[in-house]
Amino acid sequence: MESKEEAAAESGKAEVGPEMCTLKLIFIDLCLRILLFSASLTAMVVMVTSNQTKLVQTALYSFPVPVPAKFNYSPAYIYFVAALSFSTLYSIISGIASSWVIVKPCSSKQLLKFYVILVAHDVLMLGMVAAATGTAGGVAYIGLKGNSHVNWNKICNVYGKFCRHVGASVAVSLFASFLLLLLVFLSVYSVYRLAHKVVT
Amino acid sequence: MESKEEAAAESGKAEVGPEMCTLKLIFIDLCLRILLFSASLTAMVVMVTSNQTKLVQTALYSFPVPVPAKFNYSPAYIYFVAALSFSTLYSIISGIASSWVIVKPCSSKQLLKFYVILVAHDVLMLGMVAAATGTAGGVAYIGLKGNSHVNWNKICNVYGKFCRHVGASVAVSLFASFLLLLLVFLSVYSVYRLAHKVVT
Repeated sequence: MESKEEAAAESGKAEVGPEMCTLKLIFIDLCLRILLFSASLTAMVVMVTSNQTKLVQTALYSFPVPVPAKFNYSPAYIYFVAALSFSTLYSIISGIASSWVIVKPCSSKQLLKFYVILVAHDVLMLGMVAAATGTAGGVAYIGLKGNSHVNWNKICNVYGKFCRHVGASVAVSLFASFLLLLLVFLSVYSVYRLAHKVVT
Repeated sequence: MESKEEAAAESGKAEVGPEMCTLKLIFIDLCLRILLFSASLTAMVVMVTSNQTKLVQTALYSFPVPVPAKFNYSPAYIYFVAALSFSTLYSIISGIASSWVIVKPCSSKQLLKFYVILVAHDVLMLGMVAAATGTAGGVAYIGLKGNSHVNWNKICNVYGKFCRHVGASVAVSLFASFLLLLLVFLSVYSVYRLAHKVVT
């Protein structure tokens, strides 16, 4: 297979079908996309199910009243859930596109275009998921530690389950960001391999 | 120049020097890196110079006392400044690398490697700057609007200058993220051009 490729490269032929190594790369890409789907969905579900209600003593009443903590009380968490939903949807669409390349092998030219489009979208998603992770992480940190300078009290001493959910969700979302980073590296490497094979 | 390239591609030659269009792309890349340097430096300086002291009536004293607002009171803003400093440094190093390619033209193979390394680093920086923008933006939004559910009061009605600085800094940092996105697109397109030229 390799010698066939070399021969094609030497003769300057354009239509070089995806060989074993390219298929392996697409397979790894597909696996990473499945992982991305799981991570995005998990982060989203864990955040959405973080709601917790506790009996809290307030200044208004002489008895403890039930006060809920919900993710949609913070715009940062709403953006987080929206970004992760989008990432879940994207992982499905791009996963289908990846498997389509395995099922229906195409020429080097088509593969090149496919990878370039994939990288462009992956990078956009990376920016969005990284920003969402940062936003939710920043707000979660205030919830965990508070900020005495501006009298923002920590809430994690009261809402334990809520904070565990938010923390886990941010951690899984960070993992999703790393997966997107890996996907970009993989696609760029695939473009490099396709190009390098013919340039050298 | 174009016909020379075509002839080289047709004969399957590897060593194709960077022609006019490639140089144009490298020049755009360099301009974007200079812009990235300016944006990162601006965002960092505006955040660092946001300190403001106001006379605030507190519960402890019967008279107003000077209470400062500093960016380093929030870990989110410290991370923001660190990330933007890193981005400033990176834009200098990668800018030098880009201009080195203009000054000392190299083969297509070397250019290909250069772009792949550039994309990998640009993507890493994008993830970092986007996360920093999100983190600082999330905390700044609480400062601007507060959160009545957890009794986090807004501070922007008191610290006007501080909030304007933080807001402007986050906006410029968002612009820096877009610049990094553009740089990744440009580098991927350059790799595609180099590869496509020889594949087709």
